[in-house]
Amino acid sequence: MDIKLHTEQGRSTLLSHIELELQRQVSRLDQPRTKLFHEMLTYHMGWTGEGSGPEATGKRIRPLMVLLTAAACGADWQSALPAAAAVELVHNFSLVHDDIQDNSPKRRGRDTTWVKWGAPMAINVGDALFVMSNQALIALKDHHPAETVVRVAEILHNTCLDLTRGQFLDMSYEERTDLKVEDYWPMISGKTAALLSACCQIGAVLGGADGEKEEAYRSYGHYLGLAFQVQDDILGIWGNEKVTGKSAASDLVEGKNSLPVLIGLGKKRKFAERWAKGSIKTEEVEEVARLLASEGGYGDAKEASIQMTDMAINSLREADPQGEAGESLFELTNKLLNREQ
Amino acid sequence: MDIKLHTEQGRSTLLSHIELELQRQVSRLDQPRTKLFHEMLTYHMGWTGEGSGPEATGKRIRPLMVLLTAAACGADWQSALPAAAAVELVHNFSLVHDDIQDNSPKRRGRDTTWVKWGAPMAINVGDALFVMSNQALIALKDHHPAETVVRVAEILHNTCLDLTRGQFLDMSYEERTDLKVEDYWPMISGKTAALLSACCQIGAVLGGADGEKEEAYRSYGHYLGLAFQVQDDILGIWGNEKVTGKSAASDLVEGKNSLPVLIGLGKKRKFAERWAKGSIKTEEVEEVARLLASEGGYGDAKEASIQMTDMAINSLREADPQGEAGESLFELTNKLLNREQ
Repeated sequence: MDIKLHTEQGRSTLLSHIELELQRQVSRLDQPRTKLFHEMLTYHMGWTGEGSGPEATGKRIRPLMVLLTAAACGADWQSALPAAAAVELVHNFSLVHDDIQDNSPKRRGRDTTWVKWGAPMAINVGDALFVMSNQALIALKDHHPAETVVRVAEILHNTCLDLTRGQFLDMSYEERTDLKVEDYWPMISGKTAALLSACCQIGAVLGGADGEKEEAYRSYGHYLGLAFQVQDDILGIWGNEKVTGKSAASDLVEGKNSLPVLIGLGKKRKFAERWAKGSIKTEEVEEVARLLASEGGYGDAKEASIQMTDMAINSLREADPQGEAGESLFELTNKLLNREQ
Repeated sequence: MDIKLHTEQGRSTLLSHIELELQRQVSRLDQPRTKLFHEMLTYHMGWTGEGSGPEATGKRIRPLMVLLTAAACGADWQSALPAAAAVELVHNFSLVHDDIQDNSPKRRGRDTTWVKWGAPMAINVGDALFVMSNQALIALKDHHPAETVVRVAEILHNTCLDLTRGQFLDMSYEERTDLKVEDYWPMISGKTAALLSACCQIGAVLGGADGEKEEAYRSYGHYLGLAFQVQDDILGIWGNEKVTGKSAASDLVEGKNSLPVLIGLGKKRKFAERWAKGSIKTEEVEEVARLLASEGGYGDAKEASIQMTDMAINSLREADPQGEAGESLFELTNKLLNREQ
């Protein structure tokens, strides 16, 4: 299919195809005895139920990365669609389980799966999404040699173990009060960077890139993920509520061990003293955020974000993505890393 | 390795190799930052913590089936070890999540993972076991062509979706009071028969069996699983407590929709009347069990068990397993289906 991958319209066409492929994978449960089970998955994916629609599906950044990197390496993006679906299904499996683990009642403004159907059913919904990501990978065999399917599967499976490692660290950290900036990177490497890194690497493998290029794409995805997460942490404290959609500084109230907080703790000054005294109330948030900024929490985190962004852009240049898909990758990267939400 | 697969000693050698392969797969988490995470998995697998040992690991029937069917088709059983580990990891992933979903405090006499470390951590332990089953499958590539790895992966992934279907039905049934015998088979097909069926089919594929033989092995595993589950249901009501290790008739107290119960409900006589009145207390159990037996619940279930056993044996004959491994399969089948525990 000849579409202009470097235009908004081109990306929007890719996104429709991603959505169709996801729906096709999830339709495996659309059978008489498992109608309700299927409905739980389509609700979580943002296709059905109250509040369904583009706002509810999320941005589908990960599958888009798979398709664009594959195309930028010279492959037909359509042959990479099952892999694109696979990474998005992995992402969504982890979201469903995360929401249970974090006891989160809302995701993208809607009730979470466990709130609607209970934790036991929601665990099973997450498991099914995970299984479907595996099944989607197998569908690659229609377009690629079995060796390639096995390589791609290996990359994604290793990444999934990184996700569970990141999740383990995240949950372990909740109770710890002695965390340092050094503890931050292994956690977000697993939780955010690993999957984006896998998306770009998988795209490169499907596009037939050589070892060096594959490594450059992997590294690009890794730093993109780190930059993205650090930005998210900054927005979680100093973001504009109207733009981010969540109450600004809510991360402080939740006591999240985000990068600015760990930086602030490292300074061992007034912010650290306040943090040690227990949870921060909504009415204090503005003051504590200002305190943290005055002690370098904002500036140092911003500095880290700029470093990671530079590394991402450098890796992408090294990967030397071709054609319209290549242009699109640069554009998308700039857009993602200058976002306000 | 030349071992006598048809002897107890031969099977015990296989079991040691299975255990080693499982430990190798799980050791991926044995790293400085994830020591505790690794410990959670080794505890669940029965290798560490209070009560660890052969009693805690379970019988490892599924991986044994993979190795024996592969060998009975003429393959070297060692080349099937990663697949054997994969099916056992899938089984254990489902146990960890089941225990959370069913709120079960004990498994094989030990505290369940969620009791020891909380449900959020236990969800992640199950996820990690599932990921490792995928990683184990990839390790097959050292001994088998990529096409075979993809085929085996496809069989196991499809089976995993069946497991989530079975789990969904099981949880849905808990609240229903209008269940019929016809509702029983789809549920246990997913929950018990699907994985055993996959074990035998995977062994056959790795052993290079042709399509007809593969189908016979698949069918053998399927009926073996059904027979096994029906037996389990019978023992859950009329079993000998000293032999089964759980209090006899506990399934009645738990209100489990087992086959004898569904048969009893179908008779619409005194047992059905009593069942409709609400949960059965421990002191009534003996009487209700006798009532259910007198109305045909025992006899009809036993009849179903015999039918499934016959189908299993017939399918195994059709598969025509070779050599000592073949002998071992017949022996093991007879042993499993005449068990008292």
